[in-house]
Amino acid sequence: MSFEEMWTSLRDVGRSARSGGYFRQPFGAAERECAAWFAEEALARGLELRSDGFGNTVAWWGEWREWGERGSCPDGVLTGSHLDSVLDGGAFDGPLGVVSAFAAVDLLRERGFVPSKPIGIAAFVEEEGSRFGRACLGSALAVGTLTPAEAEALTDRDGVRLGDAWAQASLDPTQGSTLLADVGCFVELHVEQGRDLVHRDQAVAAASEIWPHGRYRFDFTGEANHAGATRMEDRRDPMLTYAATALAASQKARLAEERATFGRLAVEPNGTNAIPSRVTAWLDARGATDESLDELVAAILDQAQQSAASDGTAVSMTAESVSRAVAFAGDLAARIAAPRGWPIIPTQAGHDAGVLSAAGIPTAMLFVRNPTGVSHSPAEHAETDDCLAGVVALADTLEELSA
Amino acid sequence: MSFEEMWTSLRDVGRSARSGGYFRQPFGAAERECAAWFAEEALARGLELRSDGFGNTVAWWGEWREWGERGSCPDGVLTGSHLDSVLDGGAFDGPLGVVSAFAAVDLLRERGFVPSKPIGIAAFVEEEGSRFGRACLGSALAVGTLTPAEAEALTDRDGVRLGDAWAQASLDPTQGSTLLADVGCFVELHVEQGRDLVHRDQAVAAASEIWPHGRYRFDFTGEANHAGATRMEDRRDPMLTYAATALAASQKARLAEERATFGRLAVEPNGTNAIPSRVTAWLDARGATDESLDELVAAILDQAQQSAASDGTAVSMTAESVSRAVAFAGDLAARIAAPRGWPIIPTQAGHDAGVLSAAGIPTAMLFVRNPTGVSHSPAEHAETDDCLAGVVALADTLEELSA
Repeated sequence: MSFEEMWTSLRDVGRSARSGGYFRQPFGAAERECAAWFAEEALARGLELRSDGFGNTVAWWGEWREWGERGSCPDGVLTGSHLDSVLDGGAFDGPLGVVSAFAAVDLLRERGFVPSKPIGIAAFVEEEGSRFGRACLGSALAVGTLTPAEAEALTDRDGVRLGDAWAQASLDPTQGSTLLADVGCFVELHVEQGRDLVHRDQAVAAASEIWPHGRYRFDFTGEANHAGATRMEDRRDPMLTYAATALAASQKARLAEERATFGRLAVEPNGTNAIPSRVTAWLDARGATDESLDELVAAILDQAQQSAASDGTAVSMTAESVSRAVAFAGDLAARIAAPRGWPIIPTQAGHDAGVLSAAGIPTAMLFVRNPTGVSHSPAEHAETDDCLAGVVALADTLEELSA
Repeated sequence: MSFEEMWTSLRDVGRSARSGGYFRQPFGAAERECAAWFAEEALARGLELRSDGFGNTVAWWGEWREWGERGSCPDGVLTGSHLDSVLDGGAFDGPLGVVSAFAAVDLLRERGFVPSKPIGIAAFVEEEGSRFGRACLGSALAVGTLTPAEAEALTDRDGVRLGDAWAQASLDPTQGSTLLADVGCFVELHVEQGRDLVHRDQAVAAASEIWPHGRYRFDFTGEANHAGATRMEDRRDPMLTYAATALAASQKARLAEERATFGRLAVEPNGTNAIPSRVTAWLDARGATDESLDELVAAILDQAQQSAASDGTAVSMTAESVSRAVAFAGDLAARIAAPRGWPIIPTQAGHDAGVLSAAGIPTAMLFVRNPTGVSHSPAEHAETDDCLAGVVALADTLEELSA
C-alpha cells in the first residue's frame, strides 16, 4: 500500500464519531487493531517480525546472515514510532512515524537500494502514558530504564494492573526484550508539535534535544461542607487553592518561557452542593534545562503552599515521573540535516527517541511541519505534501545510515 | 425502638468504609434499604403507610374515620424529611428529621396524648439531587411544581433516565401523588448547617426563611493541544478561564456575604499531557434575596466572560435549577417558637419544607444545633442530647398543631 492507502486504512480505527479524535489506549481494542495492521503491513513487505514480552514490535527488512546472539540485528538502523494515542488525540502523533517508515522502505526498494546494514521499523507500546500514566512505557522497558516489576504494578483509571493487561494480551513480561540489543542507531520521524517549521517555512527538520519534563501530582485537601449553609469565611475549600495554583503555574511558565499545564483533575466528592474535601490535580511541566524545570516546579509548589496557608487547606506534591534533558547525537543530526538544509530545532515533547538516546543508542529525530501547531487533539494535522516530503527525508536518512 | 436504637440501626447503611461518609443515592441499594427501614418502623408502630408513584411515602398515625377523597388525611399535620444523602454525606442531613419524627410519635403516645388531627411522617425521595441533579425532586413532584414528564427525562451520571430508575424500583409515575392533598401543615426537623445555634448557645431553633439558590452549569471551551509543545501564549486553555472564574466567584460571594461554590467539575479529555478542550463546572449560588442572587450570578458570569475574552476561550452558562426565596409561615413559626424561647433564624440550604411552603402549605422548620456547622460531609455531627431536645421540641410542636 502507498502512504495514502496506509493512512486511509488507519483512519477509522479507534476514532470517536463525536469528536473525530482518537482513543487508542494500549491493549484496548483499537490499539490492538493498530498492532494487527502493523503486522499485516510488515508481512506484506516480507519483513521479519520480532516482538518482546511487553508489547513492542520491530519489523526487519531482509534476512540477515547473522542475527546477534540475543536475536537482534547487530548494527541495525532502527526507525518507527508508536501507534497509541492520548485520550481524544490526533491521527498523526505516532502513526505518522510508522506509516512513513513503511513508505520509506518502499521508496528505497523502488530506488533499487540494497542496505548493507539491516533496517528495522519499530512500534513501541504506550508511548503517551494515557492508560497507565507512564509515558514511553514500552521503550523504557525495552532499554531497561523501567523494570517489569515496577511496570506490572501500574494501574489504569479502572484499577486494572498492567500485569493483568499484559496477560490478557497474551504477553509474557518475563520474556523481557532483546529488540534493541546491538541496535546501531534510531531515527524517529514525528509530526511537529508546535509551529517552528511554519515560521521557518520548511517542511522538515532534525531535532537537537528534548526538554526535560515531568508529571507531578498535587493533592489539595480541605474540609467538605454544605455549599449553601457554610459562610465563605468559614470554609477550607481545596478548589480555591487549586484554582490559584493553576493560574500561578501558567503565569510562572509564561514568564520563564517554559510550560506548565494542569489538564487532569479528580474532585471529591464532586457534588454540586458540596464544598470538595479533595482536589487532585496533575501538573505537566517542561523546562529548557534540568535546573530551570526544577526551579519552575518548586516555584509552583511554593505558590500552592502559600495559597493553602491562607485558604486553611493543605497541599502535597508527588513527582510521578521526571525525564531529564536529552541531547540527541549532535553528529548524527548534523550529518543528516546539514547537506539537505534542514534546520535543527529542540522539542518540548517527550518521545521514545529520548528514551533510546538516554540509554546510549545514537538517536536522531525528524519533524514534519504542522500548520497550526495543534497536537494531542482531533485538530492535529499535517499536509499530505509535507508528509510525503517527510517520507523522502526519512528514506534519504535511512539510505545514508545503512549504506 | 428508641431514638438511639433507630439511629444505630441506620448507622452502617450506605456508609463508605474508607471515608465514613454516606452514599445513599435514590433508588440505589443503600437508599432502598433506608426506605425498607422506614416501612418497618412505621408498621412496628401500627402507622398506615401511603406511597405515591414517585417514591415518596407517608406513615399516618391512627385510623381516621374519613380519608379525603384523594386518599390523603384532611387537615393532617405532616412532619418528616428525607433519607437520601449527597455523595459522601453525613448521617444527620435528612435521617435526623425522620428518626426524630418516629421518636416524637412515641413520646406523644407515652404522654397519653390523643391527637384530634392526624399526624403523618413523610420520607421524600431525592432531596439532595445527588443522582438526577434536581434537588427536592420528590417533594416537587408531589406538589406538582415539577411534572412527571419533565422528571422522567432527567439522567444520572451514567446516563440512566429517571423513568427507567422508577420502573426498576417498581414505581409507576402515572399514578401521580395524592400524599399532600388536603394536608394542613408541614413541620420539618433538620440538623443545622451552620453555627448560628452555637453562637446563640441554644439547642433548637425555628426557621424564618430559605435563601433563594440555584445551580448553574458553566461550559468553558478552548482548544485541546499538546501540554509540552504548545507555547503558553499560543494556548486557548479553558482550565485557566475556569480557575479565574472560581476565584472570582468566591471573592464576590464573600464581599456580598452570600455563597458561591464550584464543587463539581468535568474536564475533557482530562489527560495529564493535554491542554483541555472543555471544562464543565457547576456553580451553586445562594443570595439573601432573589435580586441579590441574580446580581451575584450575573457578576460571576461577567467575570467569566472577561476572563474568556483574554484567554481566547469561550464560556456559556445554563441555569439548571433556580429556587426563589421562601418565607415560612410567620405565624406558625412564632406560635411554636415564642412560648418556648427558641430563636427564629434563616437558612441558606434548600429543603423539602421550602417546596411545600412555596406550594401554599403552611410550613415550619426546626433546627438542631450542629457543633462544628459542618454538613454534607462525613464529619457532619449533632450531640445526642441536642437530638433528644429536638425530639421533645418536635413532639411539643406536633402536639400543639394537632390538638
